[in-house]
Amino acid sequence: MGQVAWKALFLSLFDYKTEKYVIAKNKKVGVLYRVVQLSILAYLVGWVFVVKKGYQDTDTSLQSSVITKLKGVAFTNTSELGERIWDVADYVIPPQGESVFFVMTNLIVTPNQRQATCPESANIPDALCDKDMDCLEGEAVVAGNGVKTGRCLKDKGSTRGTCEILAWCPVEKRSKPKKPLLGSAENFTVYIKNSIRFPKFKFSKMNVLATDNESYLKTCRYSQEHPYCPIFVLGNIVRWAGANFQEMASEGGVIGIQIEWNCDLDKAPSECNPHYSFSRLDNKSAENSISSGYNFRFAKYYRDAEGVDYRTLIKAYGIRFDVMVNGKAGKFNIIPTIINISSGLALMGAGAFFCDLVLLYLIKKSNFYRGKKYEEVKSSSRKSLSSPTLNGNQSPEQLSRL
Amino acid sequence: MGQVAWKALFLSLFDYKTEKYVIAKNKKVGVLYRVVQLSILAYLVGWVFVVKKGYQDTDTSLQSSVITKLKGVAFTNTSELGERIWDVADYVIPPQGESVFFVMTNLIVTPNQRQATCPESANIPDALCDKDMDCLEGEAVVAGNGVKTGRCLKDKGSTRGTCEILAWCPVEKRSKPKKPLLGSAENFTVYIKNSIRFPKFKFSKMNVLATDNESYLKTCRYSQEHPYCPIFVLGNIVRWAGANFQEMASEGGVIGIQIEWNCDLDKAPSECNPHYSFSRLDNKSAENSISSGYNFRFAKYYRDAEGVDYRTLIKAYGIRFDVMVNGKAGKFNIIPTIINISSGLALMGAGAFFCDLVLLYLIKKSNFYRGKKYEEVKSSSRKSLSSPTLNGNQSPEQLSRL
Amino acid sequence: MGQVAWKALFLSLFDYKTEKYVIAKNKKVGVLYRVVQLSILAYLVGWVFVVKKGYQDTDTSLQSSVITKLKGVAFTNTSELGERIWDVADYVIPPQGESVFFVMTNLIVTPNQRQATCPESANIPDALCDKDMDCLEGEAVVAGNGVKTGRCLKDKGSTRGTCEILAWCPVEKRSKPKKPLLGSAENFTVYIKNSIRFPKFKFSKMNVLATDNESYLKTCRYSQEHPYCPIFVLGNIVRWAGANFQEMASEGGVIGIQIEWNCDLDKAPSECNPHYSFSRLDNKSAENSISSGYNFRFAKYYRDAEGVDYRTLIKAYGIRFDVMVNGKAGKFNIIPTIINISSGLALMGAGAFFCDLVLLYLIKKSNFYRGKKYEEVKSSSRKSLSSPTLNGNQSPEQLSRL
Repeated sequence: MGQVAWKALFLSLFDYKTEKYVIAKNKKVGVLYRVVQLSILAYLVGWVFVVKKGYQDTDTSLQSSVITKLKGVAFTNTSELGERIWDVADYVIPPQGESVFFVMTNLIVTPNQRQATCPESANIPDALCDKDMDCLEGEAVVAGNGVKTGRCLKDKGSTRGTCEILAWCPVEKRSKPKKPLLGSAENFTVYIKNSIRFPKFKFSKMNVLATDNESYLKTCRYSQEHPYCPIFVLGNIVRWAGANFQEMASEGGVIGIQIEWNCDLDKAPSECNPHYSFSRLDNKSAENSISSGYNFRFAKYYRDAEGVDYRTLIKAYGIRFDVMVNGKAGKFNIIPTIINISSGLALMGAGAFFCDLVLLYLIKKSNFYRGKKYEEVKSSSRKSLSSPTLNGNQSPEQLSRL
Repeated sequence: MGQVAWKALFLSLFDYKTEKYVIAKNKKVGVLYRVVQLSILAYLVGWVFVVKKGYQDTDTSLQSSVITKLKGVAFTNTSELGERIWDVADYVIPPQGESVFFVMTNLIVTPNQRQATCPESANIPDALCDKDMDCLEGEAVVAGNGVKTGRCLKDKGSTRGTCEILAWCPVEKRSKPKKPLLGSAENFTVYIKNSIRFPKFKFSKMNVLATDNESYLKTCRYSQEHPYCPIFVLGNIVRWAGANFQEMASEGGVIGIQIEWNCDLDKAPSECNPHYSFSRLDNKSAENSISSGYNFRFAKYYRDAEGVDYRTLIKAYGIRFDVMVNGKAGKFNIIPTIINISSGLALMGAGAFFCDLVLLYLIKKSNFYRGKKYEEVKSSSRKSLSSPTLNGNQSPEQLSRL
Repeated sequence: MGQVAWKALFLSLFDYKTEKYVIAKNKKVGVLYRVVQLSILAYLVGWVFVVKKGYQDTDTSLQSSVITKLKGVAFTNTSELGERIWDVADYVIPPQGESVFFVMTNLIVTPNQRQATCPESANIPDALCDKDMDCLEGEAVVAGNGVKTGRCLKDKGSTRGTCEILAWCPVEKRSKPKKPLLGSAENFTVYIKNSIRFPKFKFSKMNVLATDNESYLKTCRYSQEHPYCPIFVLGNIVRWAGANFQEMASEGGVIGIQIEWNCDLDKAPSECNPHYSFSRLDNKSAENSISSGYNFRFAKYYRDAEGVDYRTLIKAYGIRFDVMVNGKAGKFNIIPTIINISSGLALMGAGAFFCDLVLLYLIKKSNFYRGKKYEEVKSSSRKSLSSPTLNGNQSPEQLSRL
């Protein structure tokens, strides 16, 4: 190519090319197209942008730290333990005040257990025996408390007995108070301190309002009137989760305390507030005892004057509270905005395509419009060079347009 | 339709339809359009693809396991406890070395508490009394340590006293050493072992470099010079979090150790390394005592020769460290690539639309170009069939084009 | 503008504008375009919609609550401890049954430690000494157990000794049983109760099937035949994680139990089931002792008749199990559907652009088609008003079309 041609090429780079449109003076299709356009616009603005905040980049992986602190004392008077006061150090396990904490509300105490031999609990099928040979020496009792010594212990006159075992003796007796020992735990309060951080946006906040005065924080209780008070009454939490406190206190259970942070960081930080909700996490409805309730065993170890270890075994029933924090923060970002706008524009194209179909195939004069929209060119027909072939009757060929 | 028509339809399926363009030899709009195109291209390539890695599928839900291990001993000499050594088993709670661990740095010890009656602490407003009737029997002291017995205990000669309570007696005295008992915890070290896994990409890694020799791991300390050493000096962590160790050790507090894994899995696995950052999680700045600091109570239970339980109550102040792991892994994936490219293409369409507006309404000869771009067809005007109506003066009708 | 003009403008709003197309009767490009269209359609339907479920909105931030409960007893007979039974309260740390639990399988017991002075362990380099001056009084032994008193203790006749320290004495002797003490922990079982919730879709489920009868849940063991049984044998878990139980029990280690919920909420809730997988989290392969295995120290505190504290220090080796729950739920949502469809449509545009390039530059008659597609207009050439300039020879100018 010569220099002139190159120059022409370069100049033509800055010619503006614009699509050629055919104006179909058909009001029906015109109105239809406007309606489609408006619908798409309404969807884009109303749903995608206003409701779903499609112009925001979101961060759902928040970092969270939870500190919990319980307050309350309970008084019990049982034949076994006598008059006794239970305070925080007694009933909160573990004591550290993390996001998962357990309040002991009922317990089976088996005091003074020592390593010795004793009969296994008669409730365990594997421990029942008729003769010594049923108790294979050294074999662990299935779902039991110890290892068989090889002897079958029977009460006088009875034919059935239980195997003797080597275990922490005496073994736990399997019955717990029907009425929860620490039923008054209903009035205990828990102070939940939650600080969160959205790493993507470098935004931090606490659930304890900075502006509150100290006395408010000491006396307030969370409720619908005080949605930002971080102190909760245990009984209320359980009730809001749809459970019965006394029943749960007796059998044990798990309550989830969900803290949800749904923050629009395009607004002021003060509008980013926690929302609390409560739910029961263990399936109470299930009939099968194996999956309902919540309990665990732990022991306090002592040593007597002779240096021999003994322990108090405690089977603790109670309510475990799991503080679960989740959140979502959104902030304006150009990329999702552009993706959503351009998906809207592409939708406009789909709308135009749909109206085209109506114009070209469904209305009376569609043949005429097809001829106008499509300009047929054949390289062989020299005469079509000077004036485009425009005819209103080419239906089969046009039907195939996708 | 006859067979011929069907054949024609089938053949026309493979006719190629291409949009008809009008070349407007207007250099201003042409240049504008090229500038818009280049801007969009630059945005797409530079921002979306290079900076934001829009061609990658990302996984932010990582699985993480943290093992922590503290080392260090502290010596204290107080009138109460005498000369005493504190080692890991004494000051780390809980001992298991999980991702949340607490280092006890200050404590109020109340030894030899027994279940008995004693006067409530005079600091608790609800326990103050003038006469026995102020102490309702069986009522728990609000924010106190026990249940009132119904007696008001007064010092000789004074008119005000405190209610007698049934509690673990004697009750805790409310004062803690100003100077933290275990201030030397500043030199303790913690070894943090973190292994992560991105389930979507089946990618696992540890923060302990596999190639390091043993002696390096035993002697190194994390710092800017050793960014991949997993052993941290507690004092440094606190300092990097912007806090004062001795002050925090006295009042307690929570420090977050963030481990961030930002992995580009299109690169070598060795380039996927943790980044540590440190921040204080409890709001130290707050004036209100209820929300600053960190402490909890726990007890050690003993049994005397007569089989009566007594305990040592410990109110522990200290620093809780929360190791929080979060991460993001990205790997090339065709779907986000295509979404981003096609959103860019749709943007080009928006750019063309914008240039169209300029061409058709803002330049001098816009009337002329409008006439060229839009070809008006009316099914009633038979004569327009042979040659399209092209006139350069139809402004009001064209203004309405969206 | 007059009233007439405004009316015309308003009416023209409802004119329908449609792009003008040129039909190129070129079968090669036509077939190419259809192939491109079909490919895009296949990709969109097959990959984006069927495989990747691009029509769904997904939620990956699930809330999860885990309850674990161990069962099993072990019998040991060592010279140190005598015949002894280990039950759940002895070997599970912490006892609460949270998502992270530790099963003690090997231990070094150092009984009757008291605050006193004694020689430091000879294995610690910093404690070795020749003379008293090597033991700086008040200095803590690096990686040791106490604070130097300033004396160097030597055995009779030897020239090297170890510093005397103030510590919990006697210090721990550094050797553990080669054979794990509680090797029979291999047969212990753990019952894992996991309840999850996808907050975005308000969908909750448990891993314990509601329909199962009680006896099944008491006797089943998780395996490939029983993929929904929530009771796991520890030995199996370790084996599935690719590790050797006895070896791990001796040195300690961490096993991850991943529970994955991959739920298609467009289907029935009963099709949303957990999938379990197991992996070893500490890097066993590493040669360096500092980063392999898992152990920690804790103490049981006692008080003798004189009121002096003493303790039993236990260095516990064992297997920590981390139950990690992650999940993804998808549900039909119009927004991702539209984004994916419109990105597909935009791709169609890219396909058309590609075919245009072929038509206009790569085939024989491309010059002719270029002339047809692009209609050149110049505002200066008055005569072009009546009939568009259509010539088949304008190559350099058209080459520049992007």
